[in-house]
This record gives sequence, C-alpha cells and structure tokens, in this order.
Amino acid sequence: MTDVLDDSALDRLFRTARTYNRFSGELGDDTLRQLYELLKWGPTSANQSPARFVFVRSKEAKAKLEPALDEGNRKKTMEAPVVAIVGYDLDFHHKLPYLFPHTDAKSWFEGPQEKRRDHAFRNGTLQGAYLILAARALGLDTGPMTGFDAAKVDEAFFKGTSIRSNFLVNLGKGDPASIFERSPRLSFDEACRIE
Amino acid sequence: MTDVLDDSALDRLFRTARTYNRFSGELGDDTLRQLYELLKWGPTSANQSPARFVFVRSKEAKAKLEPALDEGNRKKTMEAPVVAIVGYDLDFHHKLPYLFPHTDAKSWFEGPQEKRRDHAFRNGTLQGAYLILAARALGLDTGPMTGFDAAKVDEAFFKGTSIRSNFLVNLGKGDPASIFERSPRLSFDEACRIE
Repeated sequence: MTDVLDDSALDRLFRTARTYNRFSGELGDDTLRQLYELLKWGPTSANQSPARFVFVRSKEAKAKLEPALDEGNRKKTMEAPVVAIVGYDLDFHHKLPYLFPHTDAKSWFEGPQEKRRDHAFRNGTLQGAYLILAARALGLDTGPMTGFDAAKVDEAFFKGTSIRSNFLVNLGKGDPASIFERSPRLSFDEACRIE
Repeated sequence: MTDVLDDSALDRLFRTARTYNRFSGELGDDTLRQLYELLKWGPTSANQSPARFVFVRSKEAKAKLEPALDEGNRKKTMEAPVVAIVGYDLDFHHKLPYLFPHTDAKSWFEGPQEKRRDHAFRNGTLQGAYLILAARALGLDTGPMTGFDAAKVDEAFFKGTSIRSNFLVNLGKGDPASIFERSPRLSFDEACRIE
C-alpha cells in the first residue's frame, strides 16, 4: 500500500499519544476553528454530522462547568486551556436536506426523539473521536473524560435544546509529569478474529 | 504548537479522504494485525477497550454476512477485500482487572448488562473511529456503513456471546470512480461555539 504515514505521525496519533492530566498553553479561536475544519470531514452515517461542540475557555464558562465534574476531574479541567464539551443533537435530521441533499434522508428519521438517539449517539461519538485525533494531528494533547454529571452539563449549556452532552475533552499542551505508566491493551487475538 | 502533521498526512486522514463504494486489493493477516496494533492505543474511558472486531475476508464468512446487509450495501461489501464488523462487548468489565489494574474498576460496572450498554456503545464506537483513521494512516481506504440488520449479524457472528454489532467498515484500495461529489459539512458556527 502507498500513502502510509511516517512513524512520527503514527506515534503522534496513536503509539506514543497519551491522555494527560495537566495541560498548559493557550488556544486561540483560530486553533479551535482549524480543529473543527479538520474533524468535520470524518465520516458519519448519511452525513448526519450530529455532534455539537462547546469550547469552554473563559473563567465564567468554566465556573458553569465545574459543579458538573466528578471531584477527581475538577482541578485538571479548570487548569486546562480549553475543555471541549462533545454533544450530539437528537434533532440532527433537520439539517439533512442540506447535508445529504440527493435524497429525502430527513424522512428516514422523523418521529419521536428516542428513535434517533442511537444514531445521534453513535455518530456524535465518532465525531468526538475525530476531534481527539484531529487535535493530536495539529500538535495538541488531549484528555477525554466521562466522569461528569451529564444532566447538569445539559442544564448549564444545552437547556431547552435537543442537544445532549456525551463526553468532555481537555485540550492543550500535556505535561509529561502528569501521566502514569501506560495501561496495557488487549492483544489482537483477544479483541479480533479473521474469518 | 509543534508536532503538527504535514499537509499530505492531514489530507489522507481527513481532508481528501472519502468513503468509497468500490474496493480492490488484498489484505493479509499482517496488515490486519498492524491495523489493530495501531488503533488499540486510542483512548477509552477507564481503558475499557470494549470493541471486538471480526475481519470478514473468506467467501464463507461473506456468505454468512450477506443476508444481513441492506440491498444497497451488498455488492460493494461482497467485492471488498475485507469488511470489518465493529462490535462491542457488553461484559467488557471482566477484563478491567487486566486493563485498569491500579483500582477495582470492575466493581464500578457490575450488575445488569443494560447498565453497561452506553459505556460499551460509546467506547466501542470511539474504537471504531480509531479503526477508520488508523486504516487511513496505513494507506487503506474505508467504507463505514450502518445499513444492515444488527440482530442478523449478531446471530451469525456473535451468537451466545455478550458481543453486539455496531457498524461495518469495508477496507481496501478505494476506486475513485465509485464516489460522488463530496457532501457539505456544517460550518464552525453551526456546529460549535466558544464560551
């Protein structure tokens, strides 16, 4: 196969990339826009693109977020230059006439929100993974977390909307002193089979 | 920021990468193992690593899969060198004493399977996204799909286990003649806000 990324790129994306517990640096609007402009190209079913992102950066926004965080996630998140709230829109189908214009895809998803939940959650999660890897590709380090009260985040950031929080990602320059020895992974034969 | 990947890498991962509808080539065991050895490093909550992958390559395995596919996905999937079934293990917590050894994380997830479903689905989906991007990083093209009958795939490939199918990914060398004009994406201001 051609077009294989070089070792340093594979290291940065996967092999030596780590989840950091302490971050420094500053992230301007330009960097956050660059991040979205990259991750947005990742594929979703029928181009649903249900993810919605809030980049929490100001003191005021962090103060709104803090009470929703598990105790162990508070300090590192308040210190991080930015924390991204990765959410998904349960009513993503309203944008399908624009996003998937060659057929009436909106009609596939009409009806009660619960029917759309798995689609929004799956595809919004894919886009959250694209955010993590796009950030790494842009030289940023990440700290994804699910240790928070989703109902409180929804109340503070998505009240009265069809958007629900999924997970959080601290962003910045990771401090190597803030990580522990790497945890193991399952072997190929534990996680995979070829048929 | 340092360590930004070069333009050709960003193109291959995101900007010019496409979901193909026709594939050629052959994928040996070595390539599939290399793919897993890369994607396995992507982060999951508490290192849950719930994704389980079946690489469907033989005629026999494809014949088992075919009846579960939506009509429109059959031809392209039967022709693809390999289709990966991305599944998730609802009983992922049994492996946490190995995967997350510094605390008793297994106890957090004991109880009925339904309690673990969102965790398994979210983190298994993240790992599915890592598979897509790891494949691209290795010079492969991808064709992710959700157009199939999950109950039939579970019956054919995961019967009597706690593994459930999530989505499928065709893998190989994509044929540029098999894609249409690229669909649009939401703008930054439609999908994001900075607070």
